[in-house]
Amino acid sequence: MALLNVSCLRYYKLSNVQAVRHYHRVSKLFQPLSVKPKDATVTKDEAISISQKLLMDTGIISLRSNGMFALLPLGERVMMKLTKLIDKEMSCIGAQRLSLPLLTSGDLWKKTGRWESTGQELLKIEDRHGKEYVLSPTHEEAITSLMSEIYPFSFRQLPLRLYQINSKFRDEMKPRFGLLRCREFIMKDLYTFDNSVEAAHDTYQEICSAYDRIFHRLRIPFLKVTGDCGSIGGTHSHEYHYISPTGEDTLCVCDNCGNSKNAELVSSDKSDSCDKCGSHVHQVAGIEVGHTFLLGTKYSKPLKALYQNESGKPELLQMGCYGIGVSRLLAASVEVLAEDKNIKWPWEIVPFKICLIGPKKGSKEASSALWVDHLAEVMSGMPGLLDEVVVDDRDRLTIGKRVMEAKQSGYPFIIVVGKRACEMVPMFELLDCTTGKSEFLSHKMLINWVRELP
Amino acid sequence: MALLNVSCLRYYKLSNVQAVRHYHRVSKLFQPLSVKPKDATVTKDEAISISQKLLMDTGIISLRSNGMFALLPLGERVMMKLTKLIDKEMSCIGAQRLSLPLLTSGDLWKKTGRWESTGQELLKIEDRHGKEYVLSPTHEEAITSLMSEIYPFSFRQLPLRLYQINSKFRDEMKPRFGLLRCREFIMKDLYTFDNSVEAAHDTYQEICSAYDRIFHRLRIPFLKVTGDCGSIGGTHSHEYHYISPTGEDTLCVCDNCGNSKNAELVSSDKSDSCDKCGSHVHQVAGIEVGHTFLLGTKYSKPLKALYQNESGKPELLQMGCYGIGVSRLLAASVEVLAEDKNIKWPWEIVPFKICLIGPKKGSKEASSALWVDHLAEVMSGMPGLLDEVVVDDRDRLTIGKRVMEAKQSGYPFIIVVGKRACEMVPMFELLDCTTGKSEFLSHKMLINWVRELP
Repeated sequence: MALLNVSCLRYYKLSNVQAVRHYHRVSKLFQPLSVKPKDATVTKDEAISISQKLLMDTGIISLRSNGMFALLPLGERVMMKLTKLIDKEMSCIGAQRLSLPLLTSGDLWKKTGRWESTGQELLKIEDRHGKEYVLSPTHEEAITSLMSEIYPFSFRQLPLRLYQINSKFRDEMKPRFGLLRCREFIMKDLYTFDNSVEAAHDTYQEICSAYDRIFHRLRIPFLKVTGDCGSIGGTHSHEYHYISPTGEDTLCVCDNCGNSKNAELVSSDKSDSCDKCGSHVHQVAGIEVGHTFLLGTKYSKPLKALYQNESGKPELLQMGCYGIGVSRLLAASVEVLAEDKNIKWPWEIVPFKICLIGPKKGSKEASSALWVDHLAEVMSGMPGLLDEVVVDDRDRLTIGKRVMEAKQSGYPFIIVVGKRACEMVPMFELLDCTTGKSEFLSHKMLINWVRELP
Repeated sequence: MALLNVSCLRYYKLSNVQAVRHYHRVSKLFQPLSVKPKDATVTKDEAISISQKLLMDTGIISLRSNGMFALLPLGERVMMKLTKLIDKEMSCIGAQRLSLPLLTSGDLWKKTGRWESTGQELLKIEDRHGKEYVLSPTHEEAITSLMSEIYPFSFRQLPLRLYQINSKFRDEMKPRFGLLRCREFIMKDLYTFDNSVEAAHDTYQEICSAYDRIFHRLRIPFLKVTGDCGSIGGTHSHEYHYISPTGEDTLCVCDNCGNSKNAELVSSDKSDSCDKCGSHVHQVAGIEVGHTFLLGTKYSKPLKALYQNESGKPELLQMGCYGIGVSRLLAASVEVLAEDKNIKWPWEIVPFKICLIGPKKGSKEASSALWVDHLAEVMSGMPGLLDEVVVDDRDRLTIGKRVMEAKQSGYPFIIVVGKRACEMVPMFELLDCTTGKSEFLSHKMLINWVRELP
């Protein structure tokens, strides 16, 4: 009976069950600790990153096969919040969400030449009739082909922005670092269509601003650098990076003007001076979490994706594509923010905002246990906290053990109902894991504090 | 600048753009009509169903390859609403959502024997190292394997209910009827774990009640029949069907006691009398939209999925699995409810609740156009209508043409701002497509009517 929420009210009224909970219970959460993958061949030299270790140790993700992970319920919650955040920003720029099939016809990839050029990272499959498909790592071919079949497609529909958030595949030679470089992952891919090079440039700027907002909302410093067009192609590209020693990209950043590039774009003899201002350039390691490309007609030309201009003449669509590695972003946040053995989540994507911990069964302060459900009920009834409170009701365990686990899972605020909750004026301990500070608050002060939460 | 919503407010304030819209515009909606699939081999005898034709004709889905469809933005909206509805009911029974990889190790399918027994419908793939995977049509192996790796898994965690909503694959010999029988589809699959046969039975009843509620909320009559355990296996099974001539299952229903079965379970010589009460049995065609299975230890035994009982001894988990074909449900709703050439959606999953249509540009009543944005603004600001109003702003088209298209797309309520909106007391036409009735309402009456919407 965990995980109830208000919407259940009517059913439970009908069936005469009286207890309605709007909060969660750790005893019922599926968060298995230290799952051992039988199937995955973990070789000695397999690279483990901080995020992989912490997310697996806390039962947030689970390795199912080499380079393939399950998102367990807490991970799924974080993913849903990330998705919602991205959906909101996409909606602000008029981008519309859709879903293309994960399998794309091999013929389309042959037309653009990527069937051959992508190499072994491309997972290919044959159906029962011998027709070839790719397990899509990206959908330029698929979306451009869709556009090419609409005719007449009017200039009035432009600019057009279409995106999806779904599973992608890349058969990495050496999957590593957990969700940072795996073989099946969640990606948000946006494709834009414009009627001119200039309009496509404007779109590019507008999308970059939306990306800036997404990354700002996560409140993790990021670096936007001139990027490598790589296998996607196009004329213009930027990458969004989180700075981390685990990062596999090397970024060159000018000490003076901030001009930044992926090191792949810098010839080795010029790597220590800025090509804009000549100042010294330093290098940092980055985890790529987003990538934007101005594509021009690279895909619309071979796949004949046209629109009808104001004079009724067909013209090639000017395209852009824009990716955010959503599952990678989840892990990269942990990679960057983790402290010691504890996960720290960006506030916008915490699996739960508040964790309540009551006294151990049989302890002297056991009578204070009554406060726990009361507080959980009151707090989860407040705006913004519905479904955001979790009670660690495993009262066989000491408070200390449960506080430790709550910190590991990355809950930003832990409220302990312990000894001092038995005092004449009950006091509750508030552990603020975002600052490391703790204080004792009366019931009234505690409720006021909760009310102030963003 | 279509598809703005309130959350954009702060950005637009910051950037000094003043217009903030909480509603959508048809001129900017990506809803391409009559897309012709170049890639798909449409053979002469390919079966087309009502839902396939209507959903494709109205640009809600698009055939991308044989048996593979894109959900275009309107289809995606419906899918999101269906998902939300299912999530709510799952949350009410304490089921937790997760995501397993879409690729499952072939070794696991070999252990249960389904690698061979499933036949050619199972899509198999080899990675670059020659390791085999299936593009999962269902996840019994994957989830049971996950459970088997958790040890000790305590009896305290039971009952446990885990589900996911994601893409599944089945290489149908002859994909047909659009989303009703395709090769890549969205499925909600729930797996339950209990500590005894009795507890598993109780769980089975509880899940069936949740399924009943899901189908009740869609307000389409459904038939729950004793089902065939088929390739999933187990001891006990029920199917949920929508009655439709397009249905590929034959159901035997007793005229007297209502006892219903899939015809596959009835021996042909006994097909016209009820095995419970002996009364006459009639046959109907059904589209299967849900299926429940009590699995026992069919998967936990070969994959050794155990829990630790109260005495600390390992015991096999008692399992159940429960599926809803979510993309099929979307199409089946259309299949059953469509009237003439018009889609009708269950209220809970309409892509938009209200469609507003203004006067044609240059017409006598063109001055009433000012009302349209005003009404859209007011209505989309009401509770439950944010993001639920669409304005057909294509004022090059006649009102009649746009009303026709709005009906085809299945919008339940159409409000026309036409000639009578120019009167001294402006009157607006409300077309209620759920009843076929229309009436003229004053501004005040219209707003009151909107307020009463569920």
